[in-house]
Amino acid sequence: MKIELYPDVSSVNEENLKDKIVVVIDVLRATSVITTALYNGCLEVIPVLEINEALALRNNNTILGGERRGLKIEGFDFSNSPLEYTKDKIEGKRLVFTTTNGTRAIIKSRYSDKIFIGSMLNAKFLAEYIVKFGKDISIVCAGTNGIFSMDDFLCAGKIVYEINKVKEVDMTDFSALAYLTYIKNKDNILEYLRYASHYRYMLAIGLEQDIKYCFQEDILDTIPIYKDGKIRRI
Amino acid sequence: MKIELYPDVSSVNEENLKDKIVVVIDVLRATSVITTALYNGCLEVIPVLEINEALALRNNNTILGGERRGLKIEGFDFSNSPLEYTKDKIEGKRLVFTTTNGTRAIIKSRYSDKIFIGSMLNAKFLAEYIVKFGKDISIVCAGTNGIFSMDDFLCAGKIVYEINKVKEVDMTDFSALAYLTYIKNKDNILEYLRYASHYRYMLAIGLEQDIKYCFQEDILDTIPIYKDGKIRRI
Repeated sequence: MKIELYPDVSSVNEENLKDKIVVVIDVLRATSVITTALYNGCLEVIPVLEINEALALRNNNTILGGERRGLKIEGFDFSNSPLEYTKDKIEGKRLVFTTTNGTRAIIKSRYSDKIFIGSMLNAKFLAEYIVKFGKDISIVCAGTNGIFSMDDFLCAGKIVYEINKVKEVDMTDFSALAYLTYIKNKDNILEYLRYASHYRYMLAIGLEQDIKYCFQEDILDTIPIYKDGKIRRI
Repeated sequence: MKIELYPDVSSVNEENLKDKIVVVIDVLRATSVITTALYNGCLEVIPVLEINEALALRNNNTILGGERRGLKIEGFDFSNSPLEYTKDKIEGKRLVFTTTNGTRAIIKSRYSDKIFIGSMLNAKFLAEYIVKFGKDISIVCAGTNGIFSMDDFLCAGKIVYEINKVKEVDMTDFSALAYLTYIKNKDNILEYLRYASHYRYMLAIGLEQDIKYCFQEDILDTIPIYKDGKIRRI
């Protein structure tokens, strides 16, 4: 059983994902939103690439959420802040969701055996669940605009760490790097985050509370799975 | 002034390297061999992709060196071990050199402004020299068979660290990761190397002495530069 890690969407070779278990990470903030929304009773999340697709899917029981350049999209209900997706707002609703990086990573992973959504919030629960399949695992970091992003990498390290706690697995050099970076710095992750350009951008547009929320570990036992265009809780 | 870092040859976008200073790293062992040979008086190193090209360039004053799968090539004078390139063997000679990963990384970087050859052996001297150009720097890790390799990454971290000692530069998330990994583990680099699959392969084929040699820091003040198909000492 082997864990490989892709630093960003552009590095993913779709053919290589066949028959693998994929975990998609866009920790700031798409996959944290998806995990939170489903935890709070959202029926399903429909990730779409384009704003027009999202608008076309709106109906009575639908919430439109997402971002462009980190900000709320005109005509949408919610932005990409997980703090907006509270139980009173999202329970029993469908969420149509479009973000710059996370959505693309999910679509790019579509040829794999199963696609799960990972975040700091659900890392431990997700890791324990996916190890049971006994298959090779590919972690796909969304990255920021097609480029490696430190925030996703740290979350990947956390997930590799949790998988290794359950079962010792073979690691590629890159997944080993994520693992080592996480275990050696887990008590001071924010020091590393300072070097993440995406983190600095989010701070600059006033999203510090979102960052603090997204970097809480293992607080939600929700395991989102993507199938046939929809993400549901398992 | 910005430092970007490519984890492996396949991730390099040739167009992006235009007008940049490139440092190519294949620390185990191609760029360590090149640095050592030039330090020991080799006139020039001619990197070629194919074995046949190398054989066609042989003449009285030429040494053929390189590897396939880490081993010496049939009909060649030397393997890819830097320990073979001693002053008595290489001084005043031309070296025609072909390796699996390093040669490819050099060729792939050909559209940049200048291409330097980096290793642990010359890291500090190289860093101090290239900072003076005041241009953006791209570090290209050769990787192993097109895949990220921990050994090259650690050497990249060392070079980013040495550049930062001379001048504080902007780092991409990935070059910051290399920088942080190096500074936090520089007194115990071998612990990280254990996770490098290429390192484990080299140990398995009996090349421990080569590894120890290649991970010595700042012992050679040679700065190899590639131009018009040849690598010479500046």
